[in-house]
Amino acid sequence: MVTLEMIKDAQQALDGVVRRTPLDHAARIGKNIYIKAENLQLTGAFKLRGAYNKIRSLTEEEAARGVIACSAGNHAQGIAYSATKLGIKSIICMPAGAPISKIEATKGYGAEVVLVPGVYDDAAKEAARLQQAHGYTFAHPFNDPLVIAGQGTIGLEILEQLPDVEQVVVPIGGGGLISGIAVAVKSLKPDCKVIGVQAAGAASMYTSRLHGAPTELGSVATIADGIAVKKPGDLTFELCQKYVDEIVTVTEEEIACAILRLLEGQKTVAEGAGATPVAAVMFGKVDTSKRKTVCVVSGGNVDVTTLSRIVTKGLSKSGRIVKIKTTIADRPGGLMQLLQVVAETGANIVNIDHARATQDSDVGACIVTMALETRDQSHINQLYDALEAHGYYLIKH
Amino acid sequence: MVTLEMIKDAQQALDGVVRRTPLDHAARIGKNIYIKAENLQLTGAFKLRGAYNKIRSLTEEEAARGVIACSAGNHAQGIAYSATKLGIKSIICMPAGAPISKIEATKGYGAEVVLVPGVYDDAAKEAARLQQAHGYTFAHPFNDPLVIAGQGTIGLEILEQLPDVEQVVVPIGGGGLISGIAVAVKSLKPDCKVIGVQAAGAASMYTSRLHGAPTELGSVATIADGIAVKKPGDLTFELCQKYVDEIVTVTEEEIACAILRLLEGQKTVAEGAGATPVAAVMFGKVDTSKRKTVCVVSGGNVDVTTLSRIVTKGLSKSGRIVKIKTTIADRPGGLMQLLQVVAETGANIVNIDHARATQDSDVGACIVTMALETRDQSHINQLYDALEAHGYYLIKH
Repeated sequence: MVTLEMIKDAQQALDGVVRRTPLDHAARIGKNIYIKAENLQLTGAFKLRGAYNKIRSLTEEEAARGVIACSAGNHAQGIAYSATKLGIKSIICMPAGAPISKIEATKGYGAEVVLVPGVYDDAAKEAARLQQAHGYTFAHPFNDPLVIAGQGTIGLEILEQLPDVEQVVVPIGGGGLISGIAVAVKSLKPDCKVIGVQAAGAASMYTSRLHGAPTELGSVATIADGIAVKKPGDLTFELCQKYVDEIVTVTEEEIACAILRLLEGQKTVAEGAGATPVAAVMFGKVDTSKRKTVCVVSGGNVDVTTLSRIVTKGLSKSGRIVKIKTTIADRPGGLMQLLQVVAETGANIVNIDHARATQDSDVGACIVTMALETRDQSHINQLYDALEAHGYYLIKH
Repeated sequence: MVTLEMIKDAQQALDGVVRRTPLDHAARIGKNIYIKAENLQLTGAFKLRGAYNKIRSLTEEEAARGVIACSAGNHAQGIAYSATKLGIKSIICMPAGAPISKIEATKGYGAEVVLVPGVYDDAAKEAARLQQAHGYTFAHPFNDPLVIAGQGTIGLEILEQLPDVEQVVVPIGGGGLISGIAVAVKSLKPDCKVIGVQAAGAASMYTSRLHGAPTELGSVATIADGIAVKKPGDLTFELCQKYVDEIVTVTEEEIACAILRLLEGQKTVAEGAGATPVAAVMFGKVDTSKRKTVCVVSGGNVDVTTLSRIVTKGLSKSGRIVKIKTTIADRPGGLMQLLQVVAETGANIVNIDHARATQDSDVGACIVTMALETRDQSHINQLYDALEAHGYYLIKH
């Protein structure tokens, strides 16, 4: 099990190794909202805390053999950084298709990266084989008391930084982060709520709670790759049952909006998983009207190309960008006339595609697809009305 | 003139109004590099400091009539926020084409926004006319001792937060920010260097320094819109001549790379102007090998659609994305064969465009344009070699 003492012990060990991340008021998100910025943690995510606490607890013999993990994400970087810092060898198995940026970052922290053909499960099998063959210690990403105790140090920091906190909202993937935080918070301040957030497309802890036992999902799909976990651990499930008040889910669009709000309002980069607590608060999944609420932004390691896709999704959801497809006559001035109507509504062109003679269009007609910058949904409605009033037929995708 | 006393006075007045922004070590950028994060300032930029210090100094009569400014950027938001906070009416003239997000933000802070058809100069004329007609006080964005003294409070904070600072690198547009910081720093620590950075496409202070007098550029063009100023003020020019050790310039690509590094490494959003000191440091325009250097990241108000364009530029400059155009035979399997060569090099496809029969291609050939994710320039060279070895001819754009 995981106790408050183990977490306090971890806090001492982590002192001077991990960053004490800022906890700031986030007025642009809501008056009662505070952000614990673990995206500003070294390696870009909270995982370093648990990883370091695990590796520093190895016996001398274990340390001499080295540590192995299977991850294409933040756990990999946390393990690599911690092991190197402690002078211990680390091996990370990743599926061969992992993003180049993640592979490079993990190598950069000093790990030996083994790229395994296939998917995550294949990489996990290879990690198990190497562990057996060489006697490495396997570092589980969440279902390990020492890892959980490491993550719990965030709970202690929150209570120190905002003693009158009344509610903490935490992302859940495998459940290691929330388990640690919940043990710390509930031990010291039992009336402070602890609420978990999952992506609706990867709601394994949520589902397990409904079933009363750890349950494996058939598949998971979410832009919040850091919490795309098929099945919680038995230990994390038990701790969540005991200490977590409620679990809510958020959609992909809600996550995208939260990332956008953090970028624009807080000038900070969150990855999908890290943005889920903010999404839950923004979209009313968690009531913050009467409680001082800390959102744990767990990490900021998002591929920049992915980031620009997510931003587009968020702009679209909030009515600030709209895609319009219509036909115009295939003759000089046709496009110009359409653009005149658009300009009069005050919408701004982001990009435009003008295509002649595809199977979707009549001969003599062109299809125009435009992305337009708008103010909000009511501005979009005005735009629709103006186009229809001028005889343009809007093609639905 | 601007004195240390005026800046200390401003600091007292701003206490509890503006945020004391964090100053953090930025190891991912360089061992001697620290960032003063004015992008985390209220309103998203340092401009609030000078604006508030100006408006709080109005006489009762002036305050009763209101304040006017001409800006589509951070100055507008600083004025609007400060005036509203002090219960004073504010009018902001903007060119009608200003980004929707800036207009909305300025209105959101309580200003009356006047959209003027035409460009910046037209908006400035209208502001002058309104000022005359209604007796408003005109708030200049930089050439005003009270505004400069407000910005100077950043210099005091830097000295308090990092007493052994040896060098401060600051963006220059009109010169208000660096003038204030330089007066503070040189008054209290004369051996600390103060270095200014301009975008090469808007190097008006740099040019003025060469000429020994404020000089107007014919035109300015840069993604760093916050410092796209054609001519420095006479006051700011004089202060820079007296207190600024050196002025350097950075290119558009260097600015884009710096924004990318701040996003990925520091998880923080900088606008073009705000990233220029980091660009100067990253690309060796400023020697940081022997001096503890603070880069003033002046603001974070970048349009998110602009941000994704900038990110693409930065990825391209650092060899992490490459665009390739080549021809393939117009028959089944043609594209597949090309993609096989690409896959073997380990490059990842971001997007692909396959077009038949344009005026650039032979009949019977298709043009394929691909954006590929790569590790670095040497990886790109490998890719070129592999494609040429398989007989693909690369079309230069």
